[in-house]
Amino acid sequence: MSEILDLVGIFVFALSGALMGVRKRLDVVGMAVIAEMTALGGGVVRDLILNVRPTAFQSSGYVLVPVLATAIVFFWHPHVARVMPAILVLDAAGLGLFCAVGTEKALDYGLSPLHAALLGVTTAIGGGMLRDVLAGEIPTLLYDRQLYAVPAMLGSAAMAALYTHDLHGWHATLAAAVLAFGLRIAAMRYNWRAPLARGVKSTE
Amino acid sequence: MSEILDLVGIFVFALSGALMGVRKRLDVVGMAVIAEMTALGGGVVRDLILNVRPTAFQSSGYVLVPVLATAIVFFWHPHVARVMPAILVLDAAGLGLFCAVGTEKALDYGLSPLHAALLGVTTAIGGGMLRDVLAGEIPTLLYDRQLYAVPAMLGSAAMAALYTHDLHGWHATLAAAVLAFGLRIAAMRYNWRAPLARGVKSTE
Amino acid sequence: MSEILDLVGIFVFALSGALMGVRKRLDVVGMAVIAEMTALGGGVVRDLILNVRPTAFQSSGYVLVPVLATAIVFFWHPHVARVMPAILVLDAAGLGLFCAVGTEKALDYGLSPLHAALLGVTTAIGGGMLRDVLAGEIPTLLYDRQLYAVPAMLGSAAMAALYTHDLHGWHATLAAAVLAFGLRIAAMRYNWRAPLARGVKSTE
Repeated sequence: MSEILDLVGIFVFALSGALMGVRKRLDVVGMAVIAEMTALGGGVVRDLILNVRPTAFQSSGYVLVPVLATAIVFFWHPHVARVMPAILVLDAAGLGLFCAVGTEKALDYGLSPLHAALLGVTTAIGGGMLRDVLAGEIPTLLYDRQLYAVPAMLGSAAMAALYTHDLHGWHATLAAAVLAFGLRIAAMRYNWRAPLARGVKSTE
Repeated sequence: MSEILDLVGIFVFALSGALMGVRKRLDVVGMAVIAEMTALGGGVVRDLILNVRPTAFQSSGYVLVPVLATAIVFFWHPHVARVMPAILVLDAAGLGLFCAVGTEKALDYGLSPLHAALLGVTTAIGGGMLRDVLAGEIPTLLYDRQLYAVPAMLGSAAMAALYTHDLHGWHATLAAAVLAFGLRIAAMRYNWRAPLARGVKSTE
Repeated sequence: MSEILDLVGIFVFALSGALMGVRKRLDVVGMAVIAEMTALGGGVVRDLILNVRPTAFQSSGYVLVPVLATAIVFFWHPHVARVMPAILVLDAAGLGLFCAVGTEKALDYGLSPLHAALLGVTTAIGGGMLRDVLAGEIPTLLYDRQLYAVPAMLGSAAMAALYTHDLHGWHATLAAAVLAFGLRIAAMRYNWRAPLARGVKSTE
């Protein structure tokens, strides 16, 4: 169950990576490379910090799903771009799931709730940051003021709180994921924004 | 003692990260993300290479100090920018401390003096390079010709030399840190510069 | 034997890093930093994923060879640039060797053929991607459509296939390296290119 949801998250992040490749006029190989790194980057960093061999290098699905996503974007990308709103919804689902799964795995490996939540956020935002840096851009989440990291932080904190009260298993993971997902959707829908530092004018 | 100095270094690097966030008009969340990565990046890479769980994911202070630095910059950044000369001095202190502490930790884990010094330099310059890459800029230390990496190299080499002669403990660490700090300050004060490759014209 | 070939690969990648430093008008320290990271980056990431201490932090040659390459470029870079075609040939040799050696090491550590090949490609392309990101550019291999990652993929796949049939040792490694090298040379010679996504116009 959790494995399937994880692969859904990987698929969605890979789609966003491959679409970035189209926007930057990369060829199909460049698209595949950036799709793999977007989809697997956050989880690999999480596992390196936990000092275990990354899941991405043990399960075939993790490697092949981004190839599938690249093929879909390669052949049907005008349609994929047209469904960008749907992509954003799926991306929010990936964000929610990755922060919940990442936090839970960190707690399983004995990190404190604070550090587990930090690692959950890292898992959720790492791949997207890598995608943007490789594409030569400042990571979206740093300057796009619609809340992105905050939903992941709250989802990770919720996961850590549930776990600390002995509530774990896929029900708890899904609840935390849904919380982060819902907050991200609401942030986009109602344009919730984080403030700029005092005295800094918005460029918009 | 060494822990306190380490946290001072983290605080100072986090300030420089958060100020970069202000310059790039990031919101408060983007500032916090870049501050955390600037402050913790070098040490995390060091610990991954040593194959141990990163200190940043075991101590609460390491995570919370960058949040504090972000809050200070968020509310008082015009003052923080005005004290930029002071920041540069503190940054030099962080550079000195991180190269000394990093080298010592690497020697404790059995690396040769050469490799320990290399890892000390990595610890000292890693976070700042990450900060600049995330902000969409070429890392300052690569093109700003005022010596930055060289003081860290000499401080790391001094630490390795002292350690090899059975001089360790915080006195030795502090001596190596002060050496690197002093060299960096002198490089800024007297505009010490590294040469360009033969025949390359400076752009200044 | 394999160690010597490995150092040749490191030397060549370091040359390409130092030459990038000249192009970006970096000083000699910046050149050395980027040369080290280009030469050692791919192997360090490989070893972190395998959860072993990076070879680069255990062997002196790995650290000193990039220093030598930097010195050569520093003093004779107009000649080095004039021999750029030779560099591209050597770079192809480095690519071939790193993908073969990387895949073999991953198989030795028990990864599946699929994952070992993925890690071999990571070893081969990782350093060059790091070089380009540090220089403020989109990694060449992502947008330059002459095949670069594909030869590494085929070389890694060949290494994995040989190994699975109990053919290993330096003969097998060299055969896989030569395959990847030959394909890369042919891709440059005959301008073999990967396709863009459907409907995307080339900018050339």
